[in-house]
Amino acid sequence: MAGEGAVLSMGPHTLPVPTALFALNRQRLADALKKTAPDSVVLLQGGEEVSFYDTDTTYNVFRQESYFMWAFGVTEAGCFGAVDVKTGESYLFIPRLPEEYAVWMGPLPKTNDYAKKYDIKKVFYVDELEVELGRLQRAKILTLKGVNSDSGLTAKPATFEGIEKFSVDDEALFPVIASLRVCKTELEIRVIKYVVAVSSYAHRQVMKQIRPGNYEYQGESQFLNACYEKGGCRHVSYTCICGSGPNGAILHYGHAGAPNDSPIKNGDMCLFDMGANYFGYAADITCSFPANGKFTADQKLIYEAVLRATLAVHSAAKPGVSWVDMHVLANRVVLEDLKKGGLLKGSVDEMLEAGLSAVFQPHGLGHLLGLDVHDVGGYLPGQPQRPQQVGVNKLRTARVLEKGMVLTVEPGCYFIDPLLDKALADPALKKFLVPEAIERFRNFGGVRIEDDVLITEHGVEDLTKVPRTVQDIEGWMDGRLDESQFRDSERLFVF
Amino acid sequence: MAGEGAVLSMGPHTLPVPTALFALNRQRLADALKKTAPDSVVLLQGGEEVSFYDTDTTYNVFRQESYFMWAFGVTEAGCFGAVDVKTGESYLFIPRLPEEYAVWMGPLPKTNDYAKKYDIKKVFYVDELEVELGRLQRAKILTLKGVNSDSGLTAKPATFEGIEKFSVDDEALFPVIASLRVCKTELEIRVIKYVVAVSSYAHRQVMKQIRPGNYEYQGESQFLNACYEKGGCRHVSYTCICGSGPNGAILHYGHAGAPNDSPIKNGDMCLFDMGANYFGYAADITCSFPANGKFTADQKLIYEAVLRATLAVHSAAKPGVSWVDMHVLANRVVLEDLKKGGLLKGSVDEMLEAGLSAVFQPHGLGHLLGLDVHDVGGYLPGQPQRPQQVGVNKLRTARVLEKGMVLTVEPGCYFIDPLLDKALADPALKKFLVPEAIERFRNFGGVRIEDDVLITEHGVEDLTKVPRTVQDIEGWMDGRLDESQFRDSERLFVF
Repeated sequence: MAGEGAVLSMGPHTLPVPTALFALNRQRLADALKKTAPDSVVLLQGGEEVSFYDTDTTYNVFRQESYFMWAFGVTEAGCFGAVDVKTGESYLFIPRLPEEYAVWMGPLPKTNDYAKKYDIKKVFYVDELEVELGRLQRAKILTLKGVNSDSGLTAKPATFEGIEKFSVDDEALFPVIASLRVCKTELEIRVIKYVVAVSSYAHRQVMKQIRPGNYEYQGESQFLNACYEKGGCRHVSYTCICGSGPNGAILHYGHAGAPNDSPIKNGDMCLFDMGANYFGYAADITCSFPANGKFTADQKLIYEAVLRATLAVHSAAKPGVSWVDMHVLANRVVLEDLKKGGLLKGSVDEMLEAGLSAVFQPHGLGHLLGLDVHDVGGYLPGQPQRPQQVGVNKLRTARVLEKGMVLTVEPGCYFIDPLLDKALADPALKKFLVPEAIERFRNFGGVRIEDDVLITEHGVEDLTKVPRTVQDIEGWMDGRLDESQFRDSERLFVF
Repeated sequence: MAGEGAVLSMGPHTLPVPTALFALNRQRLADALKKTAPDSVVLLQGGEEVSFYDTDTTYNVFRQESYFMWAFGVTEAGCFGAVDVKTGESYLFIPRLPEEYAVWMGPLPKTNDYAKKYDIKKVFYVDELEVELGRLQRAKILTLKGVNSDSGLTAKPATFEGIEKFSVDDEALFPVIASLRVCKTELEIRVIKYVVAVSSYAHRQVMKQIRPGNYEYQGESQFLNACYEKGGCRHVSYTCICGSGPNGAILHYGHAGAPNDSPIKNGDMCLFDMGANYFGYAADITCSFPANGKFTADQKLIYEAVLRATLAVHSAAKPGVSWVDMHVLANRVVLEDLKKGGLLKGSVDEMLEAGLSAVFQPHGLGHLLGLDVHDVGGYLPGQPQRPQQVGVNKLRTARVLEKGMVLTVEPGCYFIDPLLDKALADPALKKFLVPEAIERFRNFGGVRIEDDVLITEHGVEDLTKVPRTVQDIEGWMDGRLDESQFRDSERLFVF
């Protein structure tokens, strides 16, 4: 399907991404569709630039739509791609730009430039879509339409002038391609390992630099710089969350209304959730640490409860295990430790039954990770549907684990005023709470430990390389530990 | 109209932006409309979050639409604002978010929180628009519709459920509000001075750090970090252009198809065009410098031609002077020096007449600068319309200069293959070119010197604080000059 050897990269200090990665994805797609739609051609439409309102600037540097990226790896806007299911042949359609654009954009890449860059032999212009697709004489064009189970939004099916002359099926493709994105190939895993290694490095730099008296956003800035300057990652996959003190309990802190703009105080916990993006692939890591580098007894109590939950999941997760069970396992460990620490009383089984976990962790244990930070395929037909129980219903997938899945493991424990108040007012939950102990944590914020893990044949490979134990965090922050302890084993990222 | 003393800022090391800035803009707007539409109320709709395709992440951290920002200074999405022309009273309408959002977003700000933060007494929810506007009983609602002369796109007029019950005029507002944005108030100028000082600082850091062997994007990363970490500027106003060698001749280099991903070579010129954004206000600065810190004779020739054009404009520009004349002045100086340098031959007057300037500088001398990097008001009714002559027709404004305008002065000289080839094939232009000298510069790239200047009563105040002469650039890059030489005179930014 594709030639050998072409790679995308940001220089020799960064990871070369082989175009074979995307060729393999297209081949998997054609193979999968051969059973159900043998006489068809898949048509995907890439993303377009987004204007900043009515101005002549864009909202951000263009980033490719994820399904299109998965199949073609093309970073330019305005393209279409087709995969002939019958032959497995790939077609790329690129915008025909006016000649004068060369002054603004540089030498305009022609079809043969794209062919070489992306290792796709058949490259045409977008205005040739009708003719070229017509030439194939397939019974159907398959376009992509389906609901993203995290956003509730629907993917926009490809369309072009003249498509009405074809027979179009916009239903068959979605479940197949979404399903293929769930388990990662070896080539994809290598890219994910790289972006997680870069993001781990950047988190370590932030932990080393940020101190009380700094503003939260200075940590965000240091993170972005480390990912880009050292790792070639121009984008992050989601808005950086840099919460200190009580802001750590605001799950999506960092948005424009709360833009990481608080000063970090001595005695604060920091909860920094940030992840880079490399050629589309996302990392998603959270580090929680004391701003001054030294845990208090209360901070240690909460942190170690969450860490024990993390480690319990790392030990138990493997192919065949239900993600729902892992969520409940993590919940149980945190409740046990909160009880031991004097914040809760009574039976942990009864707490779980009553839904007490969702008071302290109102989000799921973790989610699929890939080209999207909340990757697709969480709830597909034929897979376990969304659980009903409070807390567990926040899971972005209820699937049984499979080899090749990449997920976040991100248990947390937060002290969120409205949730605590509601629990204290609910007799079914109040009976488990030790109010005076809970009050002590009112402005604590929260702890989340978020690792990016690969499900292997035998269990979990943790791709995240940051200090995680209390001892390691303190050692890292006071300079006793050095970088050599945190290198990724394959040395994909050498800084 | 508004209380006293509320400010927006990113911490004590950054500039406090008084909400009085926006209150004054609203007052100017009401005053201006009193003549033409006394019995009306202005309604502006703020921006909405932009989803990243069908996912649950956004394309970028939310940034406010510029007209709304100008009038209300509100950084949150989903708001409306109204100004009663009759009374001058302001109204802000905020989204009513479901209570459970508090878990994700933090304590949900209520109307009184917004009232305090933005110093606007009358704050309601968006779902109260119909009732509250109805209560005013004005003859007309004025909404914003008009074509942006840089993009050709049309501003989207405010709309809400129930607006059909009002008499709406979507024409009267645009020319008035766009016109008001052209000349900046003292309060706005202070913010612009700050963001230009921060961006100047960041450019200086890049010039100090970047060297042959680095990748271009590493300069971008260093710039972004300096602006954000030190200056509190989370955004830039446009995609960073970091061209080295021949890439300096690609005017909009840096886009997703050419993402600043070339290695910088010894002997290259660098052309770095980058500017931060602070509470909406933009900087737009270009530095051109030799990557290795030392100009060659050819680099000096081109650089000093462009610098002499810059200085000529700085000396000549003042209220009453036509921007078109400044463009031609800069062109003339560059052509004179290219002739002196042996690249051109013949009469400079005839070169100008023939449009030769547009071969070497296919863009305008500069543009208005404010909340948009290409600020509005370039071609409004009653103002000089777009010139016809080649090159001059690229100007984003042909206005006569006025006190309080902020503009970029950005003459350039580039060696752009398709333009040189076209000129060499055109007898009317070819006769001025010395082909063997031109050939020597084929892979040179280009030089642009872009300053942000304020038009004062008497002339130009250059807000940009970067090394500009050959001597200063070399001195800065080899460490002989230090920061103290480049501080902004009012010390708005202290690093």
